Amino acid sequence: RVNGERHWRQLMEIAQIGGTPKGGVCRVTLTEEDRQGRELFIHWCKEAGCSIEVDQMGNIFARRPGKNNDLPAILIGSHLDSQPTGGKYDGVYGVLAGLEVIQTLNDYHIETEAPIEVVSWTNEEGARFAPAMIGSGVYAGAFTLEYAYSRQDKEGITLKEALESINFLGEQPVGGRSYAAAFEVHIEQGPILEAEEKSVGVVTGVQGIRWYDLTVKGKETHAGPSPMEMRKDPVKGAIDILQELYALADEFAPHARVTIGELKATPGVRNTVPAHVTIAVDLRHPDTDTLAEMDHKFRDIVQGHVQRTELEAEVDEIWYSAPVAFDENCIAAVREATKHLGVSAMEMVSGAGHDSVYISRVVPTSMIFIPCKDGLSHNELESAKKQDVIDGTDVLLHAVLNTAQK
Amino acid sequence: RVNGERHWRQLMEIAQIGGTPKGGVCRVTLTEEDRQGRELFIHWCKEAGCSIEVDQMGNIFARRPGKNNDLPAILIGSHLDSQPTGGKYDGVYGVLAGLEVIQTLNDYHIETEAPIEVVSWTNEEGARFAPAMIGSGVYAGAFTLEYAYSRQDKEGITLKEALESINFLGEQPVGGRSYAAAFEVHIEQGPILEAEEKSVGVVTGVQGIRWYDLTVKGKETHAGPSPMEMRKDPVKGAIDILQELYALADEFAPHARVTIGELKATPGVRNTVPAHVTIAVDLRHPDTDTLAEMDHKFRDIVQGHVQRTELEAEVDEIWYSAPVAFDENCIAAVREATKHLGVSAMEMVSGAGHDSVYISRVVPTSMIFIPCKDGLSHNELESAKKQDVIDGTDVLLHAVLNTAQK
Ligand SMILES: NC(=O)NCCC(=O)O
Ligand SMILES: NC(=O)NCCC(=O)O
Repeated sequence: RVNGERHWRQLMEIAQIGGTPKGGVCRVTLTEEDRQGRELFIHWCKEAGCSIEVDQMGNIFARRPGKNNDLPAILIGSHLDSQPTGGKYDGVYGVLAGLEVIQTLNDYHIETEAPIEVVSWTNEEGARFAPAMIGSGVYAGAFTLEYAYSRQDKEGITLKEALESINFLGEQPVGGRSYAAAFEVHIEQGPILEAEEKSVGVVTGVQGIRWYDLTVKGKETHAGPSPMEMRKDPVKGAIDILQELYALADEFAPHARVTIGELKATPGVRNTVPAHVTIAVDLRHPDTDTLAEMDHKFRDIVQGHVQRTELEAEVDEIWYSAPVAFDENCIAAVREATKHLGVSAMEMVSGAGHDSVYISRVVPTSMIFIPCKDGLSHNELESAKKQDVIDGTDVLLHAVLNTAQK
Repeated sequence: RVNGERHWRQLMEIAQIGGTPKGGVCRVTLTEEDRQGRELFIHWCKEAGCSIEVDQMGNIFARRPGKNNDLPAILIGSHLDSQPTGGKYDGVYGVLAGLEVIQTLNDYHIETEAPIEVVSWTNEEGARFAPAMIGSGVYAGAFTLEYAYSRQDKEGITLKEALESINFLGEQPVGGRSYAAAFEVHIEQGPILEAEEKSVGVVTGVQGIRWYDLTVKGKETHAGPSPMEMRKDPVKGAIDILQELYALADEFAPHARVTIGELKATPGVRNTVPAHVTIAVDLRHPDTDTLAEMDHKFRDIVQGHVQRTELEAEVDEIWYSAPVAFDENCIAAVREATKHLGVSAMEMVSGAGHDSVYISRVVPTSMIFIPCKDGLSHNELESAKKQDVIDGTDVLLHAVLNTAQK
């Protein structure tokens, strides 16, 4: 079993970096807070005897050698970055769980056959730079390094500039490291485990995600003298489109998800009908065909609207993360660990994207979930029980040991 | 008659300051561009022999003495600030028309009985600091100087700081100057004169305006794992409310106006259901009672929505500009000028707020409109015909002469 007290203490200590008055965390990728979080993690890893490597995406790898260092390593990890108004568990728990596995192996002087590596992937959240999971995405070959480097935040800063500014543009090439298996432990970020009163979710896959920029274009004009019937009001068009879009969630219930996280009117002046409105659209479904159908219907809604009105509109798909099925052996290793430890568990599909989505393309992978309070995540009030945190990491330890053939 | 060539040349010259590639103007209040525009205007006024005074709101007064300087002056003017994506005519035309009246009187060595003053009011547009028409509003006692000074732009800069930063925080107290009458010439900013093929509008009043900040509050949560039925999605609430709000424009057609110039989701992250959405609402109607009814119905819509859903919402009214009827004698002076000059004209009510709304509280006031292309304003493509510009200023000249008893 892991050292639950130490594990919890480290989780609470790193939560101070970017800690918010409401008890959340703002440690947005490649900011000064992110740098401090990375440095603390590296410090702890070195204390635990690990060697550190940073690749050209700023992904951090901490390595504990095995008996046979020619064997491919076991990879454990997640991400240290947070949402701007995020919580103390999303991502960082999976990284520190990896560290705790290593610290526990050290405590018991256990030497594994294969080496173990703990990773923190850059920009999992996608809150500052779209798309999400870009560090693991480049690692797995889903994106080129050039594409990732060119992504810009709202201020126009590129991801490469941001990496340089916090001194985490490493030298190692991205990808091509050799792993036998990968495990990621994470809070569920949804309400199912809590409702089912289970301590651990054995994650069998991840639903699909499509991200779009929707732009509805009208004509700027004065809020006062312009008669309503002469206007080309993109806000009016946008709300009609969004109402139809939300209806897709009902049509494809219960699994479909429709989220509008951001809206922006340009020029954004109170007494001017906007020239255009830009809307961030996030559509999800666990089934590939259904998500494709949602995509078609979304485009039809927009086209139908353009045909019925004088507005123009553009749908720009900026990310597609296909539904994923995890590796059967890795899933079995987690399932057996829960049985061995007597931890209550259930199988489930992840609603959120995770670095494991991309890593599973190149390494046999699976995930472990623990419950979070009220299913709340991407919120400063995100919360998880200490015992669940420890149970999840115990399950991780045993899944790793099963795989690393201690 | 005024010197149309000189008038047009000056209008085109000042349009270079903050000129945009699309042929518009970005000379937002109290920016460097606004400073340059003000300096050029002051330079021209001094060339025309005027004395200059700047008050504590940054309002600029250029004075041409009369035969009898104990008589109250005739006031002509408008504003030099523009929308961020504004045109070459809105506001600046009315200021330079005042200057052209003075230049024409100089050309003909006409000494008027009463002095004449040309004014440029600070922050008419309200695009950077809400509410609009705040320079003339403080002048007329509608707002206190303290209130105006405390208004903030989106960056949190106060109006007072902005006045200081461009060196236009003057020393004269605001208000209390003595005027016999005030005239403002302006583009219509709507399509009526163009449709009716008239060169000049004799403006008899201004419709009422109500500005609100509407905030719809939900609960931040993750875009993926959170089931749709567990969400408190403020975007969903906002679009339902806005759809009902737009329906008010139909209910009170043809005169009601409903405009949503700005929308903002917080935290504004693609994979997070926002915590809240803030919406700028602009409601207008020429009739006081009808506008009050629109106000009630708007509040009822929001309340009804809050009762039906789990969302919260706040309606914060930040400005009310009541419908205005202009002074009968000033209207008559304009009407007679159009007849005297043989300029085609019609009577009309303004759809936009203007500095004259507030000035009419303390000085007998009226306005003169000229057509603008396609009724377009608050748009870089705003356009007016040279002949209409000259006709409008000729009418202004004769309305002033009628009143100043040359
Ligand atoms: N776990 C998580 O918050 N991932 C971000 C990608 C997503 O939006 O699902
Ligand atoms: N004329 C003009 O654009 N005024 C601004 C105030 C308003 O929104 O009507």
